[in-house]
Amino acid sequence: MEAHDGLSAAIAKGARFKGLWASGLSIACSLGYRDANEASWSQLVAVVERIVDSSELPVLVDGDSGFGNFNNARLVARKLCQRGAAGVAIQDSCFPKMNSFVGDRHPLADTDEFSGRLRAVKDRVADAFVLVARTEAFIAGHGTDEALSRAHAYAEAGADAIIIHSRRSTADEILSFTRAWQNRLPVVIIPTKYYRTPISVFHEARVSAVIWANQSMRAATASMREVCHRIMAEQSTAGIEPGIATLEEVFELFKYDELARAEAEYCGPTLKPAERIVGTG
Amino acid sequence: MEAHDGLSAAIAKGARFKGLWASGLSIACSLGYRDANEASWSQLVAVVERIVDSSELPVLVDGDSGFGNFNNARLVARKLCQRGAAGVAIQDSCFPKMNSFVGDRHPLADTDEFSGRLRAVKDRVADAFVLVARTEAFIAGHGTDEALSRAHAYAEAGADAIIIHSRRSTADEILSFTRAWQNRLPVVIIPTKYYRTPISVFHEARVSAVIWANQSMRAATASMREVCHRIMAEQSTAGIEPGIATLEEVFELFKYDELARAEAEYCGPTLKPAERIVGTG
Amino acid sequence: MEAHDGLSAAIAKGARFKGLWASGLSIACSLGYRDANEASWSQLVAVVERIVDSSELPVLVDGDSGFGNFNNARLVARKLCQRGAAGVAIQDSCFPKMNSFVGDRHPLADTDEFSGRLRAVKDRVADAFVLVARTEAFIAGHGTDEALSRAHAYAEAGADAIIIHSRRSTADEILSFTRAWQNRLPVVIIPTKYYRTPISVFHEARVSAVIWANQSMRAATASMREVCHRIMAEQSTAGIEPGIATLEEVFELFKYDELARAEAEYCGPTLKPAERIVGTG
Amino acid sequence: MEAHDGLSAAIAKGARFKGLWASGLSIACSLGYRDANEASWSQLVAVVERIVDSSELPVLVDGDSGFGNFNNARLVARKLCQRGAAGVAIQDSCFPKMNSFVGDRHPLADTDEFSGRLRAVKDRVADAFVLVARTEAFIAGHGTDEALSRAHAYAEAGADAIIIHSRRSTADEILSFTRAWQNRLPVVIIPTKYYRTPISVFHEARVSAVIWANQSMRAATASMREVCHRIMAEQSTAGIEPGIATLEEVFELFKYDELARAEAEYCGPTLKPAERIVGTG
Repeated sequence: MEAHDGLSAAIAKGARFKGLWASGLSIACSLGYRDANEASWSQLVAVVERIVDSSELPVLVDGDSGFGNFNNARLVARKLCQRGAAGVAIQDSCFPKMNSFVGDRHPLADTDEFSGRLRAVKDRVADAFVLVARTEAFIAGHGTDEALSRAHAYAEAGADAIIIHSRRSTADEILSFTRAWQNRLPVVIIPTKYYRTPISVFHEARVSAVIWANQSMRAATASMREVCHRIMAEQSTAGIEPGIATLEEVFELFKYDELARAEAEYCGPTLKPAERIVGTG
Repeated sequence: MEAHDGLSAAIAKGARFKGLWASGLSIACSLGYRDANEASWSQLVAVVERIVDSSELPVLVDGDSGFGNFNNARLVARKLCQRGAAGVAIQDSCFPKMNSFVGDRHPLADTDEFSGRLRAVKDRVADAFVLVARTEAFIAGHGTDEALSRAHAYAEAGADAIIIHSRRSTADEILSFTRAWQNRLPVVIIPTKYYRTPISVFHEARVSAVIWANQSMRAATASMREVCHRIMAEQSTAGIEPGIATLEEVFELFKYDELARAEAEYCGPTLKPAERIVGTG
Repeated sequence: MEAHDGLSAAIAKGARFKGLWASGLSIACSLGYRDANEASWSQLVAVVERIVDSSELPVLVDGDSGFGNFNNARLVARKLCQRGAAGVAIQDSCFPKMNSFVGDRHPLADTDEFSGRLRAVKDRVADAFVLVARTEAFIAGHGTDEALSRAHAYAEAGADAIIIHSRRSTADEILSFTRAWQNRLPVVIIPTKYYRTPISVFHEARVSAVIWANQSMRAATASMREVCHRIMAEQSTAGIEPGIATLEEVFELFKYDELARAEAEYCGPTLKPAERIVGTG
Repeated sequence: MEAHDGLSAAIAKGARFKGLWASGLSIACSLGYRDANEASWSQLVAVVERIVDSSELPVLVDGDSGFGNFNNARLVARKLCQRGAAGVAIQDSCFPKMNSFVGDRHPLADTDEFSGRLRAVKDRVADAFVLVARTEAFIAGHGTDEALSRAHAYAEAGADAIIIHSRRSTADEILSFTRAWQNRLPVVIIPTKYYRTPISVFHEARVSAVIWANQSMRAATASMREVCHRIMAEQSTAGIEPGIATLEEVFELFKYDELARAEAEYCGPTLKPAERIVGTG
């Protein structure tokens, strides 16, 4: 499940997702940037740190094209690993990239050059850190042959899994790929546009994982927009209160009770009122 | 209206709010921290920068207690001013503080010491930068006399407005204050708990501004929680799609069209395919 | 004069330099990165902020190639402007770049594409913010004609000045350029390698400014190396004490006395011992 | 040996120091802040990350008073641990603190409250992460009894070592402490003021480690000051060149050759000129 900040990460964990996708698009939106490498790599790393710390879940990071060449890619990967991310996905685009759903031009990187980026990352990070190669072959307007040829090259370069991306509203590109791929490496998909295809179809196609890549951000967008418009119109929050989370629910999400217990433990009997920050009155 | 990141800021702007409140609680949640001065002052400044850049609206920042003494307070204020914030609110708490709605112990700072913090800020920032003094007298369990005496001292110290805060579910503390205050300085309130009191009551009491301090964050929390639970249960996003924002709406919010126009202008006739990032094919 | 952090900036100010050069190489060294766009643009912006705040001098920032395309360049320029920098120099390299003195391959950007980067920056920043176009034509192995043709294109695109760079140990490339250029725009040079040429030669050639681009960093490197080796060998600092700055000199550089005065002013008569941080006992 | 950025860290490593001290004073100077908790905890963490990455040595971090209460202290410690620091030293001061050598007022924290801070840190970080308790008892004007009583309490609270600090120009306070302490825990000292005492005296007193806490920063300060003044006076760098590090020495320090080798490995035979950043021509 997508996460874009500490809040969305904590919520996805509460819904029992076993892993998170630190989405480039959602994080860009959260920061008020466009998904065109406006945010710097270190700003991405800082957001990922908050997602990891808040959820303590395995987080796969959308590393775009690696923020430059092999050297930038391995540096970013090492930093994400240090922050506790479980892995990074790097796509065969050029820097700066443009969101896959915007515009019609998405030039692909040279296959060998991109394979070098993958090898550089693989050589730099710990073995347990997962490297996913994402090919934008379909996004760039190529066919299944190009997607396959790239996926094979990326497997050769050391990728642990492949993300095959498509912006069609049906899963035909995806299924054409999986048929030919024969599961040489695990396949991960992002059904943002072809969400109507039942998950059972992907199970059959031996897809290993599905990324719900931006729905939390889009849900938040819709609800914040509604709440803003209603407060502006009604000049009151009384009408919207029943539909939004209570403060108590928010406090529970971030374990404010742990802070109270810790205070008792670490400030305990010697606590002077002026030093106590959470108390029982 | 509250904002806690670039996304909530852009949305509040879209709903025609004229100014934003960079809420300490909401920003803490967004970062996955607790509202107990876990986030550093420079992390707050970084979030405020995204809120200002994304909305281009006047932003009043919740500066907590100023992150330390007079020296810390003036440093933070100067940095917020540089990032384009319109003002900062500083409250008469000690560092680190605890969220006003959590626990029963909220020790107040010494009135003179806090007045010094206000004077230090006022002397350091540009005249146009607004300094709001927030008193937690009611939160700390004191009565109207203490609140008034502090508000007068803070006005003397150079505050441009007063936030009087209350955690009761009725507005009695607030109205008791405004009756006695006689509008010496503009009064700002945060009706998170006493939201049932109609806004007309505050108009009559000559309250200058109302801060809806955390509703966007709480709306986002509720909607993300629902979407996460439904996706987990339904193993599909088909059911939730109608209720969340479309990608097109998201792209519009952040002016992706400006990027396409700028590319045409700056890369124009000489644009080679490999350099074009947004195009029409 | 080059600066790479708050300390070097304060020292250059103390020596009465009227402006600073936030050197990409020196900042990279200070951060422990290589000068190959390893540091992110936001890390550069953070260092520049410290240089500006510490010196309160006009700072011209080495913006490398603008950290990507026109969109990245204008974003970085706007942020540098906000942090109080006086201007930015952008060079006609590709991203990521390599330090001009390392290796023999320094591919130039397409002239039109780079001119678009310059125009994008110029349109985005305040009029008073200086945009310097730096051509690496000589570094890339081209001759005076290419350097001139590029400089003219960059002037056309709105640059306020031109940096012409050379890695030769004599100033022949520079002087060949200035002769033909006829001072259409102010020319700035960086005599790191051709430092033996007397400054009077550049005056005659109507060079407007000389950047001493890395000498503070290199002086610090030499002195820290010597001190480290001596302490390691002598197991004592007694021998090196006479050659290094005293703590008092350091405190003076950063105006610790202002803190003492401010404390007296803002904590004044009401100061309790536990709140006083600088005092006379 | 002290380090305050990536450069000083790499140099100290080159001189074969086995461990580094990330000095609060030196880092503050490098950032252009005063050593009075002006830099935020996250800014400190960012600098420590550069020191660790640049040196790959064990780094003990000067954590001041822990940046607030037990909760702030354990948060900062956890982040330092994540960045690869080997340990943190926390001192029994209040927040914000003032540099131990400035002014005469250095109020101590309550012993029990500070012990709580230590316990909170110890419970939060990995076992291998070293927690050093630093007592400012002598700095605050107390005698050996207070220093001892505090050191015993901090040992009880879980500290792995004790820093006993003194601002006298002789080591009498230190030696008075070590005589009575009987080495219950390792003792670490910072002979900034009493540097004339031979190291053999401390060996005999069973001091475990000596921190040379700010000499690199002070050496850099002196040399940068001299170079700035000479360049200003001589309008040339020819005279100072022999005394400063060469660019080649700088490039060696940061392993630019690794970048050339990596490029050959990862871009290898398929490298197109436009993609090559380091080459042999």
